[in-house]
Amino acid sequence: MARLIEELRKLPGIGTKSAQRLAFHILRSSADDAEALAEAVREVKARLQLCSICNNITDVDPCLYCASPTRNQRLVCVVEEPTNIATIEKTHYNGVYHVLHGTLSPLHGVGPEHLRVGNLESRVERGDVDEVILATSPTVEGEATAHYLAGALRRGQMRISRIATGVPAGSDIEYVDEVTMTRALEGRRSV
Amino acid sequence: MARLIEELRKLPGIGTKSAQRLAFHILRSSADDAEALAEAVREVKARLQLCSICNNITDVDPCLYCASPTRNQRLVCVVEEPTNIATIEKTHYNGVYHVLHGTLSPLHGVGPEHLRVGNLESRVERGDVDEVILATSPTVEGEATAHYLAGALRRGQMRISRIATGVPAGSDIEYVDEVTMTRALEGRRSV
Repeated sequence: MARLIEELRKLPGIGTKSAQRLAFHILRSSADDAEALAEAVREVKARLQLCSICNNITDVDPCLYCASPTRNQRLVCVVEEPTNIATIEKTHYNGVYHVLHGTLSPLHGVGPEHLRVGNLESRVERGDVDEVILATSPTVEGEATAHYLAGALRRGQMRISRIATGVPAGSDIEYVDEVTMTRALEGRRSV
Repeated sequence: MARLIEELRKLPGIGTKSAQRLAFHILRSSADDAEALAEAVREVKARLQLCSICNNITDVDPCLYCASPTRNQRLVCVVEEPTNIATIEKTHYNGVYHVLHGTLSPLHGVGPEHLRVGNLESRVERGDVDEVILATSPTVEGEATAHYLAGALRRGQMRISRIATGVPAGSDIEYVDEVTMTRALEGRRSV
């Protein structure tokens, strides 16, 4: 029991109290449920891996996006986390991805060497990419990461672009903060 | 008393019950307070007017923006309401304004003839404007209004631009809706 509590405590957001509560829940659950949980934990590590091309979480390598013949393999959208891909897939985007698994965060000791960017640099170096879209969030860390990558990936004629910061669709400009309004004005486009 | 209730009921968002409550409050308040309210109501109509150039609410005509020698009088930011000017003034914007006092809203019977746009058309017609920034909100009505104005104001080389729609500054793209994400990708800029 102490060992289970100790293992559960290693999970993010789970303290000693929560770990105890979870451990007691597992203890009271059926043998089938406990086995199903154990198997699911084992299987996720056995089956899932990172795509060798884009770092997305996948059960086949390369992942379904990188292997797709109908996607534009020369248009690469760089995101912070695998979950961000779901957000972009809701749009009509039809290129591929690169997952950083984090952002630069000097205050937390996360420097460029911690970003998983080597395989993206290789793709760019080989001339396999027409455009890199930097789709990190417009937060301090996301902007710092985009700025770093814009410098690190620059090669010849390859386009490097940044997603628009601005007023969200459906929002009244009355409720927009001044940084967003400034960026919305700076990023205005001719119509 | 019935007359006061009737007058108060004409205000937006004030129904019969609220009007009665306000009327009784005024009845119970001091003669000075009642007089101050009456005078303030009278004065706002006597003193304030719309700027003849930009339709902003002002006590002098032209308003302080239109009369300013330090502002770029050839850069005009079109907004829906006078309050929107405060939002834009928080940025480093240094042009002038045009206030529409509304948006197109076919469902509510508000057509182009209801927009106060004649004096803006005159400014454009005289060649007094280098760029019109359409800063209506990215809502259905705001977009329809921007689209209408882009067509109605088009003259020679004058630039017409639209503020950026995108992920708000400081937001994680995880929490962004699909329309905003689509616009953020479409509106990406080379860096």
